[in-house]
Amino acid sequence: MNLIHLSLITLLHFLLGKNLSDLSTNGNSKNILWHECPIQKLDRQKLLQQKGCVIWITGLSGSGKSTIACALSRSLHSRGKLTYILDGDNIRHGLNRDLGFKAEDRSENIRRIGEVAKLLADAGIICITSLISPYQKDRDACRALLPKGDFIEVFLDVPLAVCEARDPKGLYKLARAGMIKGFTGIDDPYEPPCSSEIVLKQQQQKGSDCMSPNNAAEKVISYLEKNGYLRA
Amino acid sequence: MNLIHLSLITLLHFLLGKNLSDLSTNGNSKNILWHECPIQKLDRQKLLQQKGCVIWITGLSGSGKSTIACALSRSLHSRGKLTYILDGDNIRHGLNRDLGFKAEDRSENIRRIGEVAKLLADAGIICITSLISPYQKDRDACRALLPKGDFIEVFLDVPLAVCEARDPKGLYKLARAGMIKGFTGIDDPYEPPCSSEIVLKQQQQKGSDCMSPNNAAEKVISYLEKNGYLRA
Repeated sequence: MNLIHLSLITLLHFLLGKNLSDLSTNGNSKNILWHECPIQKLDRQKLLQQKGCVIWITGLSGSGKSTIACALSRSLHSRGKLTYILDGDNIRHGLNRDLGFKAEDRSENIRRIGEVAKLLADAGIICITSLISPYQKDRDACRALLPKGDFIEVFLDVPLAVCEARDPKGLYKLARAGMIKGFTGIDDPYEPPCSSEIVLKQQQQKGSDCMSPNNAAEKVISYLEKNGYLRA
Repeated sequence: MNLIHLSLITLLHFLLGKNLSDLSTNGNSKNILWHECPIQKLDRQKLLQQKGCVIWITGLSGSGKSTIACALSRSLHSRGKLTYILDGDNIRHGLNRDLGFKAEDRSENIRRIGEVAKLLADAGIICITSLISPYQKDRDACRALLPKGDFIEVFLDVPLAVCEARDPKGLYKLARAGMIKGFTGIDDPYEPPCSSEIVLKQQQQKGSDCMSPNNAAEKVISYLEKNGYLRA
């Protein structure tokens, strides 16, 4: 908060006879009132018979984030629950089309998705995000936006070798060929989360207890059920 | 779309044996696939028994946008419909906290709110936006994001003198005193929409057929009902 600016505005309002209790400054924004509306999150949750929250799926490219997000959305929908998927790639076609892949753009990409996820959760929706989100600090910043408990981190703990063998978009090949720079897992780090609410592990060996997308979805749904998110 | 870039990527994928049919470039973003999910807007609409859309409320500061947005949200909620309000001021506390009030920031503010409104409508929600949005081109750009019919512009046609007499935030006083520059209606233009779906007029004389927020809300709800937005 820009205190000098706020003090100036406060003084001006005082001189002009206005009460400033609701006025604040935020970042570059000034003269902004916060409007409260009688229909709140609790009302929407009652209507939907669920609690708005964010299921934040993080993992390497090719770890299965989108697949699990879809399985989860399908399974929750079949139980009458309203979900919405924010897919990192899809959002880059719209809201984040002005952003590239340099460090500050990646960070801004995640910040905006975190803010939109917060709005969707506030709307009462079970919002599922699907993006690599390789850095702890970016994930933590998004977590901090949500009320305690409402940010549910799901770490797809799949070894790089497995993701690279799958390579569903052919991006690892391009990265190994040096055609993509700063690719997570190849020449940019992935910081594994240390305190995710849910960890979905996948073994490197084919045919071992490889978790199906539906099994993964059920594991997340059990968590939601146990923690009261599937009722108002 | 950056065709040269796309051609290079296509060639690379061809050489590396990957099918590129789903790959596109958008703005600064590359190597981005579009992920389709089996649960679509139609499914969510069926669940909610309504159609997702955007009610875009535009008008001068003090014209009553937030008040009407709240009345509309309350009335729709009482009919069991899920709404969410995107208030220009509130969004500046979160998603748009990095934006100020210079021309390009105002434009970006509206662009992002348009993109988020689109996501909320896609989620099946009746999204109500409440922001001055003074320029036709910005409003039209947001309209263009939505499927035909789903962007419902509501113009609060309230004379400047009425808004300035109300001055609920004391901002006109500051603008007249020269303490706020580029204030819509004072030293920055408001371009009245010429083809809004709904126009809510307010007379300058006190006590004349002044439209109450609830009457205004009912007018919008009639439009929604008539156009099938309150059923799946």
